[in-house]
Amino acid sequence: MSEYILNLLPVTEEEKREFEAIAPQAVHVYAGRRTVTQEQLEAATVIFGWPRPSDMKQARNLRWFQTMWAGTEEYEGMLPQGICFTSSAGSNSRSVAEHMLASLLAVCRRLPTYRDAQKAHRWEDEGAMKTLLGATVLVLGAGHIGSEFAQMCRGLGAHTVGLKRTVRGDVPGFDQVATMEELEQWLPQADVVAMSLPHSPETVGLMNEKRLGLMRDDAILLNAGRGSALDQQALEKVMKEGKLWGAALDVTDPEPLPQDSPLWDIPNLIITPHVAGGMRLEITRQACIKQAQDNLRRYLAGEPLVNQVK
Amino acid sequence: MSEYILNLLPVTEEEKREFEAIAPQAVHVYAGRRTVTQEQLEAATVIFGWPRPSDMKQARNLRWFQTMWAGTEEYEGMLPQGICFTSSAGSNSRSVAEHMLASLLAVCRRLPTYRDAQKAHRWEDEGAMKTLLGATVLVLGAGHIGSEFAQMCRGLGAHTVGLKRTVRGDVPGFDQVATMEELEQWLPQADVVAMSLPHSPETVGLMNEKRLGLMRDDAILLNAGRGSALDQQALEKVMKEGKLWGAALDVTDPEPLPQDSPLWDIPNLIITPHVAGGMRLEITRQACIKQAQDNLRRYLAGEPLVNQVK
Repeated sequence: MSEYILNLLPVTEEEKREFEAIAPQAVHVYAGRRTVTQEQLEAATVIFGWPRPSDMKQARNLRWFQTMWAGTEEYEGMLPQGICFTSSAGSNSRSVAEHMLASLLAVCRRLPTYRDAQKAHRWEDEGAMKTLLGATVLVLGAGHIGSEFAQMCRGLGAHTVGLKRTVRGDVPGFDQVATMEELEQWLPQADVVAMSLPHSPETVGLMNEKRLGLMRDDAILLNAGRGSALDQQALEKVMKEGKLWGAALDVTDPEPLPQDSPLWDIPNLIITPHVAGGMRLEITRQACIKQAQDNLRRYLAGEPLVNQVK
Repeated sequence: MSEYILNLLPVTEEEKREFEAIAPQAVHVYAGRRTVTQEQLEAATVIFGWPRPSDMKQARNLRWFQTMWAGTEEYEGMLPQGICFTSSAGSNSRSVAEHMLASLLAVCRRLPTYRDAQKAHRWEDEGAMKTLLGATVLVLGAGHIGSEFAQMCRGLGAHTVGLKRTVRGDVPGFDQVATMEELEQWLPQADVVAMSLPHSPETVGLMNEKRLGLMRDDAILLNAGRGSALDQQALEKVMKEGKLWGAALDVTDPEPLPQDSPLWDIPNLIITPHVAGGMRLEITRQACIKQAQDNLRRYLAGEPLVNQVK
């Protein structure tokens, strides 16, 4: 079966040669999200990268599609029937975890407030700060990202607890792992609640007003998964009432966050525009290419693929 | 020899009992920096805490003084002759190191720029970021703080190099330790240059224009030691020319930084008002009390004191 590999990944010339060495019989075509043609889409048996979801209908010869990101919801209902669909889950977990840690430490040290003072040329002591040493960090979603973030926090002296749908043994970085059903028991014990949940029917609105209310008054909330998992109005309400030390959201619902959202102006709440992951670090790009190459080897050998979504 | 211990530390009732149990024969008097009386100063044989330097001349019965901070330059020339002078070096090293890490990661992830966008309700991607994974972190001053900071960076995957006046074996957290004489060889190799140097004749102006020029164009500079070790005008000049990815200064020269300093407005440069240390974390206060108690035990037993300045 001859393969036509349509590669929309950001590859170097050397990496192109690597793909071609892995599949020497295949046709290798390189293009970009915007430059890809209808003919290429129609001919492709394999697609790597981040095509526009609306383009996917044209790929009627497609057998396998590996997207460039961990999240896959944008392709729901947009893919040809019966194809194999894999994600790049894990490739950006270092980047997202580091962003979560950066935001968490910034909130602990009141850096947003100090930034505002700096803009006004004001040298002013803002008082007490928080440390990760001895803190309990509760991570909702103990996947690649949650695990990497937990490892960082544990290395800095925090006690780490991961919650996930089903528990099958230990997860690196976590002192304890429990099921999501225990969420409400754990919330009052956490100094930090870090969300790295995908979008799914079970996660929508998961952190609602009741659950935010169960958090400690001086706890910190992070969200770097999907905005839909957090009730933003409830967050606004509890923080305006003085609850929480601070928060950091890299994801919102909707995105972009509307200009008139009250969240923009809540003190010690950091908003970043969904930039924790993506191709902002060279290590993320490299990990993504490596995952595609590894899966291509498996595909050609008839082995099960990694990160299979369906 | 009867002791009159004037304790100006922020102690709890329980901690007072601990001091009294360590020195049951001594007179224990507790006061604050502003509430201490002339009589107390005159009677004191031991002082713990942070008295006004100008008050110290009155302490004519003083034998030992332990200050609350790591830095001791404010008492230079202000202390009675012949007394023993110790610092609390190390007690705030966790706090300072965590502040350095927070600032470093914030600069890596462009959080200052994102904060400014947030204030303007702007959802805008600022592009590439930096990671500590695989980065070379050069620490100038491999004391308590430098060592703790290096441990954090190494835990996050950085290669750490410490420079100090004299090298006597390994220092925790550092992959390599060399002498300050090698500074100019190391600067071009560093992704991060972190300064945690005390104020001294050798450190004044240490990072001058020539040495800043030896740094990589996309390197990051941190200063959390003393402002005098950095030539601020030179930093302004090189950053305005587009050199450096970013910087974070918790200390400046003078302090407060004057309102009209051009440093306030340099992009991706974080200024915090000398708040990395101090009593902003409960763990710092506890470490400081513990150091005073440990040294009091040594003092009464006639053993050498820890952190002796002179």
